[in-house]
Amino acid sequence: MRNKYDHMVETVDIDENGDRLLIIDQTLLPGEIKVIGLKDIKDIREAIYLLKVRGAPAIGVAAAIGIYVVSKNSNINDRRDFDAKFRENAAYLNSARPTAVNLSRALERMEKVLEDNKDIEVCRLLEKLKEEALKIKEEDTRMCRSIGENALGLLKKGDTLLTHCNAGQLATSKYGTATAVMYLGKEKGYDFRIYCDETRPLLQGARLTAYELSCAGMDVTLCCDNMVASLMRQGVIDAVFVGCDRVASNGDVANKIGTSVVATVAARYKVPFYVCAPSSTIDPDTATGDDIVIEQRPGAEVTDMWYEKRMAPDNIKVYNPAFDITDNELITAIITEKGIYRAPYFFGREFI
Amino acid sequence: MRNKYDHMVETVDIDENGDRLLIIDQTLLPGEIKVIGLKDIKDIREAIYLLKVRGAPAIGVAAAIGIYVVSKNSNINDRRDFDAKFRENAAYLNSARPTAVNLSRALERMEKVLEDNKDIEVCRLLEKLKEEALKIKEEDTRMCRSIGENALGLLKKGDTLLTHCNAGQLATSKYGTATAVMYLGKEKGYDFRIYCDETRPLLQGARLTAYELSCAGMDVTLCCDNMVASLMRQGVIDAVFVGCDRVASNGDVANKIGTSVVATVAARYKVPFYVCAPSSTIDPDTATGDDIVIEQRPGAEVTDMWYEKRMAPDNIKVYNPAFDITDNELITAIITEKGIYRAPYFFGREFI
Repeated sequence: MRNKYDHMVETVDIDENGDRLLIIDQTLLPGEIKVIGLKDIKDIREAIYLLKVRGAPAIGVAAAIGIYVVSKNSNINDRRDFDAKFRENAAYLNSARPTAVNLSRALERMEKVLEDNKDIEVCRLLEKLKEEALKIKEEDTRMCRSIGENALGLLKKGDTLLTHCNAGQLATSKYGTATAVMYLGKEKGYDFRIYCDETRPLLQGARLTAYELSCAGMDVTLCCDNMVASLMRQGVIDAVFVGCDRVASNGDVANKIGTSVVATVAARYKVPFYVCAPSSTIDPDTATGDDIVIEQRPGAEVTDMWYEKRMAPDNIKVYNPAFDITDNELITAIITEKGIYRAPYFFGREFI
Repeated sequence: MRNKYDHMVETVDIDENGDRLLIIDQTLLPGEIKVIGLKDIKDIREAIYLLKVRGAPAIGVAAAIGIYVVSKNSNINDRRDFDAKFRENAAYLNSARPTAVNLSRALERMEKVLEDNKDIEVCRLLEKLKEEALKIKEEDTRMCRSIGENALGLLKKGDTLLTHCNAGQLATSKYGTATAVMYLGKEKGYDFRIYCDETRPLLQGARLTAYELSCAGMDVTLCCDNMVASLMRQGVIDAVFVGCDRVASNGDVANKIGTSVVATVAARYKVPFYVCAPSSTIDPDTATGDDIVIEQRPGAEVTDMWYEKRMAPDNIKVYNPAFDITDNELITAIITEKGIYRAPYFFGREFI
């Protein structure tokens, strides 16, 4: 346990012996920085479901490393038994959260290693699975940096940026998606000022984004989700950057609940609204936002969680979707590691 | 202290002997229903500043009753001394919150009693002040009911309504402004379904509106402020009703922070957005929303208040305006006790 978040601590990693998935338990932030080691399939699924590790890219990396360590620790040597158990575990992990495509995409890549290596022994296969998991992680870091470089070209020194939720280093292997431009801007002396929405109900903006960016020495101001129109009406915000959990073929975007509120307000006040999307979040098999399954989460996250005393009446019904859909027409551009895409959007098979 | 909110409990009242202002301490809701009696000017100002009593109309009534009980308890018999002290106290109370016009309007009405009765003794003047304070309260109740009746004509049975913050019975003498249509609809069998935004940072929607409406037996669902686009994109909401703290001459409206976010989203999804405004909140002397002073409140309301553990990094800067401005073009209609007004708005001297 450390007292202050250090950007050298990896959000998702594998331990030296290669038999535990290491993650920062993000539910404890910003009060406590605790790296936990997981090797049981149930613990790994729970860590994803309970948002100990969260953010679409980080979930993908955690699932890849997770399925590897579980498989290694299973000590199954018969190849047929190994493959059957692997697929069972993959399906179980994949059920943890439905909205982000990265989770299933990472697990599919790991399964493909089985298919591509049908005739090798388990011990050799395990090496290849480890390589693939680490490759997914390395690609994620490279992708984030490229997204940041692409985004930086859209901005000028001294700009004030707004972001929603945490599409930060804590949501990826490094740099973040929406925050990559902020980290690179910091490196290159752009002197950005950053506003972070707190992002109810789980407060990822307050707990994670405000935290990691201020630890990195940036000028950060926190606000509630409902203050964005107040800021934009006054002309305070030059551009909005958000991450995403899934991009449909037509450019509709599923991202943390409240994203489309920010997008709608930004459109009204003509503030550019940019979605930062690694290719791994683009899903050409999903035609539009209406085809994306939106996870509904427990009402207690709204009425009870984080509170000393209950802040709503007993037995009140709660609407608590984890994500919403931002219509493509509200999006100024979608920034991937490959380049900047503008309307009309069409993401085809080249993104698989 | 009672266990459940009873709509017969008055939000603001005067005690039997006429020497204490009685209010429900709304910072304790929904956990505890406690009526507190105040007779000291500092306590009354603090109750308004700390939102123990809140909501533009209720603040006006509390200030009127408050300045009366303070004046009565002062035991000053010399008329000149009495008037000087009265004006000093009125200015002090008026400084508690800058945005709602009702506070200053109510205090002006009370001061006018002094001017209209320059030659009478203090004991007789006190009777007239008490009459005026109770008249302000009675007028508020009548106004709310009329607003509800006017609004009900815009709806049909089974409609689903959204409201933001608390413009409810707890914000007025009775019925509320935005909620009057809901109480009347309940009386008349309209079977409305109601969604309440929680309204960060002080959660008046969760703590007060969801509470008072569900205590009244309505079908209420709570959501976070950032979920309104998700609801409206799905066509769930038939109309939005909000209260207001000040209406400028051109129809721009100052109301609880986040109101203009809801208005912007409603405009996008073509959901009617209605502002419920007693005439006492209309200020012809304010030309546009830009001329309205927006109260800034402590950042701790965002980072600390209500929380068991601090949910944001230490020393983070916070933007925490209490209100925002909704541009008149986003407002479908402004509903007063006198009728329904639509764009182009012009509120003139007839509203003073």
